[in-house]
Amino acid sequence: MENFEFYSPTEFVFGKRRELECGKYAAKYGAKKVLIHYGGGSAVKSGLIDKVKASLTEAGVEFCELGGVQPNPRDTLVYKGIDICRKEGVDFVLAVGGGSVIDSSKAIAIGTVYDGDFWDLYSGKPIEKALPVGTVLTIAAAGSEGSGDSVITKEDGMLKRGAGSDLIRPRFSILDPELTQTLPAYQTACGATDIMAHVFERYFTNTREVEITDRLCEAVLLTMIKETPRVIKDPDNYDARANIMWAGMVAHNNIVGVGRQQDWNSHGIEHELSGLYDVAHGAGLAVIMPAWMEHVYKHNVMRFCQMATRVFGCQMNFEDPEATALEGIYRFRRFLRDIGMPINFAELGAKEEDIPTLVQKLGIGSGTRGGFMELNADDVTEIYRKAVRAEI
Amino acid sequence: MENFEFYSPTEFVFGKRRELECGKYAAKYGAKKVLIHYGGGSAVKSGLIDKVKASLTEAGVEFCELGGVQPNPRDTLVYKGIDICRKEGVDFVLAVGGGSVIDSSKAIAIGTVYDGDFWDLYSGKPIEKALPVGTVLTIAAAGSEGSGDSVITKEDGMLKRGAGSDLIRPRFSILDPELTQTLPAYQTACGATDIMAHVFERYFTNTREVEITDRLCEAVLLTMIKETPRVIKDPDNYDARANIMWAGMVAHNNIVGVGRQQDWNSHGIEHELSGLYDVAHGAGLAVIMPAWMEHVYKHNVMRFCQMATRVFGCQMNFEDPEATALEGIYRFRRFLRDIGMPINFAELGAKEEDIPTLVQKLGIGSGTRGGFMELNADDVTEIYRKAVRAEI
Repeated sequence: MENFEFYSPTEFVFGKRRELECGKYAAKYGAKKVLIHYGGGSAVKSGLIDKVKASLTEAGVEFCELGGVQPNPRDTLVYKGIDICRKEGVDFVLAVGGGSVIDSSKAIAIGTVYDGDFWDLYSGKPIEKALPVGTVLTIAAAGSEGSGDSVITKEDGMLKRGAGSDLIRPRFSILDPELTQTLPAYQTACGATDIMAHVFERYFTNTREVEITDRLCEAVLLTMIKETPRVIKDPDNYDARANIMWAGMVAHNNIVGVGRQQDWNSHGIEHELSGLYDVAHGAGLAVIMPAWMEHVYKHNVMRFCQMATRVFGCQMNFEDPEATALEGIYRFRRFLRDIGMPINFAELGAKEEDIPTLVQKLGIGSGTRGGFMELNADDVTEIYRKAVRAEI
Repeated sequence: MENFEFYSPTEFVFGKRRELECGKYAAKYGAKKVLIHYGGGSAVKSGLIDKVKASLTEAGVEFCELGGVQPNPRDTLVYKGIDICRKEGVDFVLAVGGGSVIDSSKAIAIGTVYDGDFWDLYSGKPIEKALPVGTVLTIAAAGSEGSGDSVITKEDGMLKRGAGSDLIRPRFSILDPELTQTLPAYQTACGATDIMAHVFERYFTNTREVEITDRLCEAVLLTMIKETPRVIKDPDNYDARANIMWAGMVAHNNIVGVGRQQDWNSHGIEHELSGLYDVAHGAGLAVIMPAWMEHVYKHNVMRFCQMATRVFGCQMNFEDPEATALEGIYRFRRFLRDIGMPINFAELGAKEEDIPTLVQKLGIGSGTRGGFMELNADDVTEIYRKAVRAEI
């Protein structure tokens, strides 16, 4: 096991109707004037934004608001949010939505108190301060409610880049599974895929002897395999929604990733897809992640056998371990197809002829990307090609 | 799943030689004058206390010290610590040791700023403020390094009582698995038993549909079953020590317990044993926990079958589920015996004739104790009797 630090100071408030307490928690963490940041019309139409406003008013907290966050949240709206916060004297950003809204809120929180273009902080410059952020989560997927990460897309060129710091870990996150019950099956499945990908990016490691995090990873994956088909079949199943929502947090606050080298190549390779075609991140991952697995499994066949047996319930083939590894990958892709995810370029709306562009945008050049297996431009090209051809 | 809050703001600093950074972390969390609190001579003899002092000095933090914490830490030393802190103007308590030292430090931290007898706060009065606490952990067992709990024994009558508050969650906890390598096999096994008990107390619940926490519980238990025999055989196995040390934190910061009713009857029933005979808490749990299981398994045979199959690798007997449940309990006790734990009263040094005293001290009277199965005085008597007779 490698040395590590683990710090997850967010106060999680979980369960039915907990969003009615958001004012109390904003006040607890010092908010005087909040920016309520949200996405499209659903948070307004469902009455959630009104509930949030009433809760803030009841707690004596002032607010202003900014809606319109899109999936793959844009820098352009972040600039608008920063302007509002500065003009209105906002001291707390409250995200009401899913990962895109939370990531956009984190960007506004650091941009407001940064003397310069906030994009610097998504180009490698370290974050030194931030307004506090809180969240009311409406989609189980990104895990941004418990993480110190944010991914923003620069509209000019659709460049997707990330920033990270403990300073943007939410002070509190309210998770009411009922809020996710209205989510369409496709988006629910995209979220589930993202959650599983967050685990797999940590699961495939070259660090030996990290049984505790291996087992915790498997715990989240087993939960997702049980609960996801249940919510696809019965969207109102509160308990299944609740298990998925909490699994989404556990998958990404790094409790399942400490003490080990991680991968994150599938995320990087996928980001170029969702950047270029503006498809859902989870859908892109469903296409890329099994293709990545097929490309790299020979690097450590036994680790893939562990996944196949412990996570997907395969019987170990002791005479032919490789068959077990491939069976595990097959079952993962089969699972993704069963919950309604695309599994190849055509189903995603991506084009084979764009592969050189995707590889070029990834900026890999003549170098490699580290992780479970070092990948060069040829490897990435081959992964995209496998994703073109994938069938089941 | 039930509504819940989860809050674990401790900064964990894990790995080899991380104790050399304790001064830096104390300063980060505002310490100007630290009370270094520790146990017997081993922390001094090993040079650990000197390293801690050097690190504090390097960070410009002043300190005073108080050693002498015993297992089942006493109120008498807490009073002494409170006196020192008040006289010396201490603003931060640094525990260097295992669960007993940390619990004693937490008591000093709340007692120093409490206007009255600190025992009030172990008799049900809510904790309203506390000095900040940090830890350098030397034993993987109690999980106190990541919890808001503390258990203290009142020397007069050997009464063992607990207090809890987010205010006494450590600001930082330094976990260096190397520090546990000198621990004798018996104490190592006691610690492992305590860790597993912390999980079982959360695992046996009447709350349905909490798959994510079930799976996380099982993850910790599976890790302990793999790693404990390895460290008993090879005390210097760093990776096995590391997995156990982190599992000990995960087992008790409540990440494996949220969203569900918990039990804690085995802990309560054991506390009277270690209170009366001053035996190690883990050893008492090894005697009590399987006896408790034998007494309650019929309350939910299927839950015990889940434990037997998922945790202890039993084959489910679909024609006779009860046989599977009992096989799981047998394997747990077999595991405890294999790692060198006592499994009955005689091996622990407890006496059958003291059972009425133990039951009386538990203060159950004519009422019941809630949890997985409601227990009255007769139930508790029967659990102690089963613990007298246990064999393997």
